[in-house]
Amino acid sequence: MSIEPRTLKGFRDFLPEEARRRQFVISVLRNIFESFDFAPLETPALEYEEILTGKYGEEGDKLMYRFEDNGGRRVALRYDQTVPLARVIAQYQHQLPMPFKRYQIQNVWRAENTQKGRFREFLQCDADIIGSTSTRADVQIISVAAAGLKALGFENFRVLINDRSIFEGLSKGTIIAIDKLKKIGREGVIQELVSKEGYNEQEAEQTLSRIENATAPTRLQEIFENLNLIGKETVPYIFSPTLARGLEYYTGLIFEIEVEGYTAGSVCGGGRYDDLIGMFSKEAIPAVGFSYGFDRLLEAMEVLGITPQLPPMIDILVTVFSEDLASSSVSFASRLREQGFRVEVYLDEANLDKQIKYAVKKGVPYLAIIGPDEAHSDMVTIKTLATGEQARLSQNEATEFLLGNIQKENS
Amino acid sequence: MSIEPRTLKGFRDFLPEEARRRQFVISVLRNIFESFDFAPLETPALEYEEILTGKYGEEGDKLMYRFEDNGGRRVALRYDQTVPLARVIAQYQHQLPMPFKRYQIQNVWRAENTQKGRFREFLQCDADIIGSTSTRADVQIISVAAAGLKALGFENFRVLINDRSIFEGLSKGTIIAIDKLKKIGREGVIQELVSKEGYNEQEAEQTLSRIENATAPTRLQEIFENLNLIGKETVPYIFSPTLARGLEYYTGLIFEIEVEGYTAGSVCGGGRYDDLIGMFSKEAIPAVGFSYGFDRLLEAMEVLGITPQLPPMIDILVTVFSEDLASSSVSFASRLREQGFRVEVYLDEANLDKQIKYAVKKGVPYLAIIGPDEAHSDMVTIKTLATGEQARLSQNEATEFLLGNIQKENS
Repeated sequence: MSIEPRTLKGFRDFLPEEARRRQFVISVLRNIFESFDFAPLETPALEYEEILTGKYGEEGDKLMYRFEDNGGRRVALRYDQTVPLARVIAQYQHQLPMPFKRYQIQNVWRAENTQKGRFREFLQCDADIIGSTSTRADVQIISVAAAGLKALGFENFRVLINDRSIFEGLSKGTIIAIDKLKKIGREGVIQELVSKEGYNEQEAEQTLSRIENATAPTRLQEIFENLNLIGKETVPYIFSPTLARGLEYYTGLIFEIEVEGYTAGSVCGGGRYDDLIGMFSKEAIPAVGFSYGFDRLLEAMEVLGITPQLPPMIDILVTVFSEDLASSSVSFASRLREQGFRVEVYLDEANLDKQIKYAVKKGVPYLAIIGPDEAHSDMVTIKTLATGEQARLSQNEATEFLLGNIQKENS
Repeated sequence: MSIEPRTLKGFRDFLPEEARRRQFVISVLRNIFESFDFAPLETPALEYEEILTGKYGEEGDKLMYRFEDNGGRRVALRYDQTVPLARVIAQYQHQLPMPFKRYQIQNVWRAENTQKGRFREFLQCDADIIGSTSTRADVQIISVAAAGLKALGFENFRVLINDRSIFEGLSKGTIIAIDKLKKIGREGVIQELVSKEGYNEQEAEQTLSRIENATAPTRLQEIFENLNLIGKETVPYIFSPTLARGLEYYTGLIFEIEVEGYTAGSVCGGGRYDDLIGMFSKEAIPAVGFSYGFDRLLEAMEVLGITPQLPPMIDILVTVFSEDLASSSVSFASRLREQGFRVEVYLDEANLDKQIKYAVKKGVPYLAIIGPDEAHSDMVTIKTLATGEQARLSQNEATEFLLGNIQKENS
């Protein structure tokens, strides 16, 4: 009996076109991270279970992939990139430069409910600055987050910025209710404060108003001043006093980025979390960072029509006239490769029409045709697919022609 | 009680320097694969257990990470990239162009004995052509393997090539013994044939000699002819009739690449395997491919002293004189970033000496210093660290100066 070929629910194969697009987005973000001097870090897929459990609340422990390995060790699959980062900081403390600026782009695994369109394996893209309390670190984190979006072609987005200290003195329930403002509206928030948190109408209204009209704390003002120097063109931000980012571990700055025209949620979120990184060591180590939602980024690009049109992988398809002439095609292809061209030799046996269709489908710009006439005189016919023009040239002339045209296109 | 920060045996953290080097090697290989028209494929880390078990022999089933997920499904971690490829071919047969040329660069997990210096999580880099029986496919696979090594800076290597048909009529034990020739020598092979396979001295000697002096089968000769056209400079190969590549699933061409000066083993191996890909479908689907040993590649580069010296991630460090002048540094840095420079603003509070040392340690070529004098006159002092030269310039002049010099360096 043959085994049914299938993937697990919530897991995805990325076939070439999608894999290339994802790689492209990753390389754009990688470039931006590195241009701001963030260095890559990679951690293992598997960790000792005790490293991960108890760090993400009950929900996290439930959704984590955990098992016993062949050696009887309790292990768990990476659930996010922040806890492994905290472990790395503690483990290599004396080797790492401080402040430590790292980015990390790896998959994480969560046994999420797939009914909600969630994935069980998905890519996270994080950038964090560890070991600095400076507002310049906060400013830089916001700047790099915005720069990544610009580099991907997003033009209209805004960074919503707040500071956790805005909520000082308020109960968790109150913060959770206020955080829902965008989703459920003012009336909704007030109702929730009354029904769940024991406020009366007036108190609820006053509390919400007080937050809505709060002024930014001093530290945030300093951040805003620096962001203004960088310019609103570069980092379009607004102060958003009702932004709470759930009940996460943030201790100061919090921010989210919303993309105009994409309503499924923020594509990026982060903030300062000065108490979390120290979990594996004795001292608290300040930290500020953010994470792009990679799948959301791709979805937003799709929605806005800015998904990159990737160029064809190859410049030239060398056709094969017949098996006995194939070697001429192979050697001409090799010659082109030595010139730095990206070249494919047609692999199957097929008539020229089929080979041309193959090139057109792949978007290959040039065809090199070596039939019996060409083969016997060391010539080659070059066909420009966009115009249909073709010319029979010596192999030298053909190489010159392609060098001229393909460099022109790439520059 | 605090949790000890540690990684599992056989698993590795890649700190920035190493992670950058690995990324660099990956990007070089990715480029080569794509320039030969191989497209990326990614498959999930977890598969249904039944997809993977029984495909790698007893040893494989034993070393595989397998467990029951939260939904009671038996799952297993990716063990290699060939079985998932076979599943993909069967699952998306009608969506995929044939021949299907894909490369795949992902981690695999094996509960190997770490005593032997083996890793339990390691990167595989595969390239395969599915659906073509043409010798051009074989030639291309060998060519791309060699091109990848050249691109990484390997100059002296050779491709050992053989065809499985050489061993026709010989027992498995005989093939295994002959495959050890390089390791245990002629005498060793003959002894093993006598002691384990029931040959007498003379028969053993004759069998070994027959293989050593075998002529290449017709199909291999055709491959060699094409490789000769490409040139031994480009693909330095030799016919190696005693090469067997263990008892793997190969059905025709087999090859390995040895690097001169690196004796720990071949850095690359592959061949034709026409029966394997069909395991999830009714029809056999021909295939030829290879895999680089990524860790071995890095090790060989280290041994040969060709490990790439990666350029500094940033062009310019903008120093910070004091907290009250920091905003001038932040805004000048932002201006430089808009010009496309890769820029870091110093984050801590520190004296200029410490900031210069930081730049030197990181290999940053230029320092932009904004002290009180500069700040009050919109000037900046640019220091070239290689020469120690410095000049106080207007911000415009400074930008021009850096544009001239940094572009010069990169071109």
